[in-house]
Amino acid sequence: MKKFMDKDFLLQSEAAKTLYHDYAENMPILDYHCHISPKEIAEDRHFENITQVWLGGDHYKWRLMRSFGIDEKYITGDASDKDKFLMFAKCMGKAVGHPIYHWAHLELKKYFGYNGILNDKTAEEVYDICNKVLQDPDMSARKLVKMSNVTLICTTDDPVDSLEWHDKIREDASFDVKVLPAWRPDKAMNITKPEFVSYMQTLSDVSGIKIDSFKSLKEALKIRLDYFASKGCNVTDHAPSYVMYHPASGDKIEEIFAKRMRGEELTSEEELQYQTAFLLFEGEEIGKRDWVMQLHFGCKRNNNTAMFNKIGPDTGYDAIDAYYPMGELADYLDALAQKNVLPKTILYSLNPNDLMIINTMLNCFNEAPNVAKIQQGSAWWFNDTKLGMEQHLKAVAESSNLSGFVGMLTDSRSFTSYTRHDYFRRILCNYLGSLVDNGEYPEEDMDILGEIVKDISYNNAVRYFKFPLETR
Amino acid sequence: MKKFMDKDFLLQSEAAKTLYHDYAENMPILDYHCHISPKEIAEDRHFENITQVWLGGDHYKWRLMRSFGIDEKYITGDASDKDKFLMFAKCMGKAVGHPIYHWAHLELKKYFGYNGILNDKTAEEVYDICNKVLQDPDMSARKLVKMSNVTLICTTDDPVDSLEWHDKIREDASFDVKVLPAWRPDKAMNITKPEFVSYMQTLSDVSGIKIDSFKSLKEALKIRLDYFASKGCNVTDHAPSYVMYHPASGDKIEEIFAKRMRGEELTSEEELQYQTAFLLFEGEEIGKRDWVMQLHFGCKRNNNTAMFNKIGPDTGYDAIDAYYPMGELADYLDALAQKNVLPKTILYSLNPNDLMIINTMLNCFNEAPNVAKIQQGSAWWFNDTKLGMEQHLKAVAESSNLSGFVGMLTDSRSFTSYTRHDYFRRILCNYLGSLVDNGEYPEEDMDILGEIVKDISYNNAVRYFKFPLETR
Amino acid sequence: MKKFMDKDFLLQSEAAKTLYHDYAENMPILDYHCHISPKEIAEDRHFENITQVWLGGDHYKWRLMRSFGIDEKYITGDASDKDKFLMFAKCMGKAVGHPIYHWAHLELKKYFGYNGILNDKTAEEVYDICNKVLQDPDMSARKLVKMSNVTLICTTDDPVDSLEWHDKIREDASFDVKVLPAWRPDKAMNITKPEFVSYMQTLSDVSGIKIDSFKSLKEALKIRLDYFASKGCNVTDHAPSYVMYHPASGDKIEEIFAKRMRGEELTSEEELQYQTAFLLFEGEEIGKRDWVMQLHFGCKRNNNTAMFNKIGPDTGYDAIDAYYPMGELADYLDALAQKNVLPKTILYSLNPNDLMIINTMLNCFNEAPNVAKIQQGSAWWFNDTKLGMEQHLKAVAESSNLSGFVGMLTDSRSFTSYTRHDYFRRILCNYLGSLVDNGEYPEEDMDILGEIVKDISYNNAVRYFKFPLETR
Repeated sequence: MKKFMDKDFLLQSEAAKTLYHDYAENMPILDYHCHISPKEIAEDRHFENITQVWLGGDHYKWRLMRSFGIDEKYITGDASDKDKFLMFAKCMGKAVGHPIYHWAHLELKKYFGYNGILNDKTAEEVYDICNKVLQDPDMSARKLVKMSNVTLICTTDDPVDSLEWHDKIREDASFDVKVLPAWRPDKAMNITKPEFVSYMQTLSDVSGIKIDSFKSLKEALKIRLDYFASKGCNVTDHAPSYVMYHPASGDKIEEIFAKRMRGEELTSEEELQYQTAFLLFEGEEIGKRDWVMQLHFGCKRNNNTAMFNKIGPDTGYDAIDAYYPMGELADYLDALAQKNVLPKTILYSLNPNDLMIINTMLNCFNEAPNVAKIQQGSAWWFNDTKLGMEQHLKAVAESSNLSGFVGMLTDSRSFTSYTRHDYFRRILCNYLGSLVDNGEYPEEDMDILGEIVKDISYNNAVRYFKFPLETR
Repeated sequence: MKKFMDKDFLLQSEAAKTLYHDYAENMPILDYHCHISPKEIAEDRHFENITQVWLGGDHYKWRLMRSFGIDEKYITGDASDKDKFLMFAKCMGKAVGHPIYHWAHLELKKYFGYNGILNDKTAEEVYDICNKVLQDPDMSARKLVKMSNVTLICTTDDPVDSLEWHDKIREDASFDVKVLPAWRPDKAMNITKPEFVSYMQTLSDVSGIKIDSFKSLKEALKIRLDYFASKGCNVTDHAPSYVMYHPASGDKIEEIFAKRMRGEELTSEEELQYQTAFLLFEGEEIGKRDWVMQLHFGCKRNNNTAMFNKIGPDTGYDAIDAYYPMGELADYLDALAQKNVLPKTILYSLNPNDLMIINTMLNCFNEAPNVAKIQQGSAWWFNDTKLGMEQHLKAVAESSNLSGFVGMLTDSRSFTSYTRHDYFRRILCNYLGSLVDNGEYPEEDMDILGEIVKDISYNNAVRYFKFPLETR
Repeated sequence: MKKFMDKDFLLQSEAAKTLYHDYAENMPILDYHCHISPKEIAEDRHFENITQVWLGGDHYKWRLMRSFGIDEKYITGDASDKDKFLMFAKCMGKAVGHPIYHWAHLELKKYFGYNGILNDKTAEEVYDICNKVLQDPDMSARKLVKMSNVTLICTTDDPVDSLEWHDKIREDASFDVKVLPAWRPDKAMNITKPEFVSYMQTLSDVSGIKIDSFKSLKEALKIRLDYFASKGCNVTDHAPSYVMYHPASGDKIEEIFAKRMRGEELTSEEELQYQTAFLLFEGEEIGKRDWVMQLHFGCKRNNNTAMFNKIGPDTGYDAIDAYYPMGELADYLDALAQKNVLPKTILYSLNPNDLMIINTMLNCFNEAPNVAKIQQGSAWWFNDTKLGMEQHLKAVAESSNLSGFVGMLTDSRSFTSYTRHDYFRRILCNYLGSLVDNGEYPEEDMDILGEIVKDISYNNAVRYFKFPLETR
């Protein structure tokens, strides 16, 4: 029996231990996709207590508490921070097999020096220990980032964002972690959302282009793309419901755009046609700039209307969607490839059933000189569990090129979520170690395998995104 | 090498053995969903031979025999009971990896005291041993239930059923196992089936409400819901093809109902609209009564027309369906939640690809004070295999709250199928034990884990359904 | 730690080793489905170098090289054979977990006597070793087949093929391996393809039937079916996009056929109706002849238009498709079963999500006297990986009848791909051995299990297809 979450946590063979401790463990972290607030970094936010750090905005944890029947008062309501933590701890003791159970314990060890177990019996003690650490004046958002050995963070930003906080961080010589923006143009893509028309006005104001057509919208976006590029941005985050391909003529798209601007309702087909045109435009511009396009899809959002009306979006009411024609993804990539503007692209589906489908499709669009030009993104959101990551790694290894994989991201709003990289690296090393242990890869080539581990942990991301960083 | 199906069958670690033997093994069984005949319990049926017990109505076994090329004569035909058993035993010897292989051996041990192997060489011997046991005058349906440590059984009943056999059982003080009805209103939901109109007449007669509209149908159903409640019923079994959400106005539904009553053919869309209205009504009534709604879907039934015409439904010719918009399930639950009438709900899809989709959707609708108000039902029908159960448990543990799971059911027509609970508990304990063994859950908290095992084995079902039983 | 790919490669228990070495290892190979050129066998092709053998037409390897960012020049371009091999070897060293990594090493051992590792450091040495072997005048296509212990090969042939090379092979007494044709009527099924009309002319010429209607097309096909039968053919290879069921009247089908012959465009629905009629005709004729129908589906082909225009089909640009109504497969099989002409059928979906769906559907159509009349085909194409095969075997074992499975095929264009049978047998024995090791199948019945291994390796195929071969 292995000890609970000791230094060899999740490492089941000697080869796995070697790969983790000799190669993975000390590699820095490159978090190319998260939802951290650049303002909190710029202002170097301090946290009053562990509840603020853990439960302030983490809807993963909120969902888990709801599944334990905890009253919403202790989740997003007006209970005291201490009572909220005690309720969370009570759930933790019984959350066997859940990734939050492991993440929480990894975070307690790494950031708070607590090596025990979190459950209802230890809740008070843990609350006090964590808060004592957080009251140290040196302990802050930046300190947590530095403790995590992070070299670069990509936030998520709207095209109209001024990126002022990014400027402030860059200009502050006392903090050497790069914090770059990422391009997330949801509001320009989601033509049927109520706020679309007013957003067009905002984008007009920010870009200086009067937007009265799809053509002028594209001009405005190009100006903002260039602005983002001037701030070091080279990565996007696109989140369509699925990657559709419903091409229509330029005239038809202008007609749809005009119809929407007049306040008329669009048909589903018109929405798909507009979004196809939008994503073709984006893909082309991203390809021309040699950025990386991240396509996230397969999510059905805001499923609980009553709770949405009470506490808004991103509060734990999203789910995996299915039932979309995956073949259109291939048609979309093909259309860009035919114009020779297909960018480096990372594909993330929230639906784990898409794993093998995506892996076989992306291999139809790989081409020199990029290694793994089109990538299967890391096990995402509901899938970044032990089993989810294992299935992802095996699918990539067996049907694509695992050695070229750009690796893990946090996708998080929290400054202590970097332990997810550690979780990922342990699972990665355990998988690769199992292959050596089982005679499926030669022990003689452990040096090659060690370099692969370092590459997936960090170096591949440096090379693939072309960030201004050194490989290690 | 472990010995064949000994006391530690399927238990691969010391922690697993402890969890099973110290916590799971002796817990009673609460079979909240089966298809046992209440008449056979009331009359305390005796069985002439093992063929009657095993092969009388078990289409799982019939399918397996057909896949071995056995002539239908020995399956549902006129061969002797002995010859049928010999044919079945011949298949068993080669049914490596099949759950029926394990279930059969568990049943031979538990009910018939036979600890050997069943194959074509031992077939005659086993036939004689089993039949000798069955000829004991004390051996009967009730005895089998008592031997299985069952405290409560929910049968499956049509709204027009008199529930007379349930009355007889309840009134018989010599049998202390509770046998309650479950509400299965398929015939009122399946508006396009040929028997719908005549069923409306039967329901009119039984309820005393003249059914000439959807409104009056609902009144009749409410009367029957109350009648079922008076007999202790608090659980349903709904089996739509999938959980659809095609809302329509009240007038439109009345129009559809009237059209059908006139004998006209409905469109697919009209069928979906009617069934949506029907399930919304049912969900609301069930929610108001604080019952549990069980939704079973993803099944394509009666695929072999020639065999259906010969031997009817439920004879082994059903299959998993796919290709339905799972997103509508979320919309359906949302509609009930918006009216604040969403009942405790257990979701079972026959399609194992839906596992993670369902788990992420249900967590959008959990709310206090229920623990795991919306549940992912146990690995169902074709999925209650070792791998199917493991995948189910891992999905629930990693993305929901396994500790709140209401656990296994038999879904069976047989009085010896209770060993499926044993099979399930071994797989559950093996999974949880593997987490302890691998350092993923602390050995120090084995007492918490033991309670979780007891809860999933029995107590959670007592609490969730609110049956008149004590937890153990 | 196990040694790298030694004699016990992939065999993790003593039971697995026994099953492999005592039962599987020396069984002959029956390759009932491949794409080998009968001309190359008839002419007993010699190969100049390992690049010709490995990289001449193997788009599996091409895709892998593209995922490593290798320039197309070294894949299908004009680089030297040696440089192509060196580039391939460079990828190999890092292709951890990929089946090509294992296949390549198995082939190096078996055919070239090289027991070391292939990576960029050993590339030159391996190139020389292999080429020396290939320059032996005895080393040829036939020698490779004989070294592989193959008794029978089914090629893939168009209905208009003269089968002259099959004649030449049969007439040559010096080569005792049977080489039979398989019926692949894609060109007559794919009514919307540009070449359909000219193909009708070719088929008219070859069959002697003037094809001016669907009726006459069927007459022509029957003549060719009989011709193929006269050459020993008893197996087909049908590759629809999915198994559809859109029945239409005979008149409607004639109308569609006439419309297409006039050069008019068909609707999607008309295409589905025609293909339904075509597959119903084929199924019936195959059933009447007691052949085996192989249905391959779930593939989206030629996804990269730019590369298709450069290097044509079957060059590594296909992918898994999804999003087709699997229920229609059941309706199609049912239609044939109702006419009592349903042939023995093997179902292969490229989409691994279909595994359990197919297994439950096929069991609705099994019937005596065939063992496993309808089969789940071997893990196909992108799925013939270690994990893909394991998932396939477990699905068949848990929900069908693994002991009746006809086993592995190569689906390959290469004369050294027979090691895939070895790979498969190791995975099979490891799975079955794990069941014995874990007490899930009795060690006492290892003789039964050994026979099952022999059957799946070879004998089941002999019996199922009724090839003129002895079981072993």
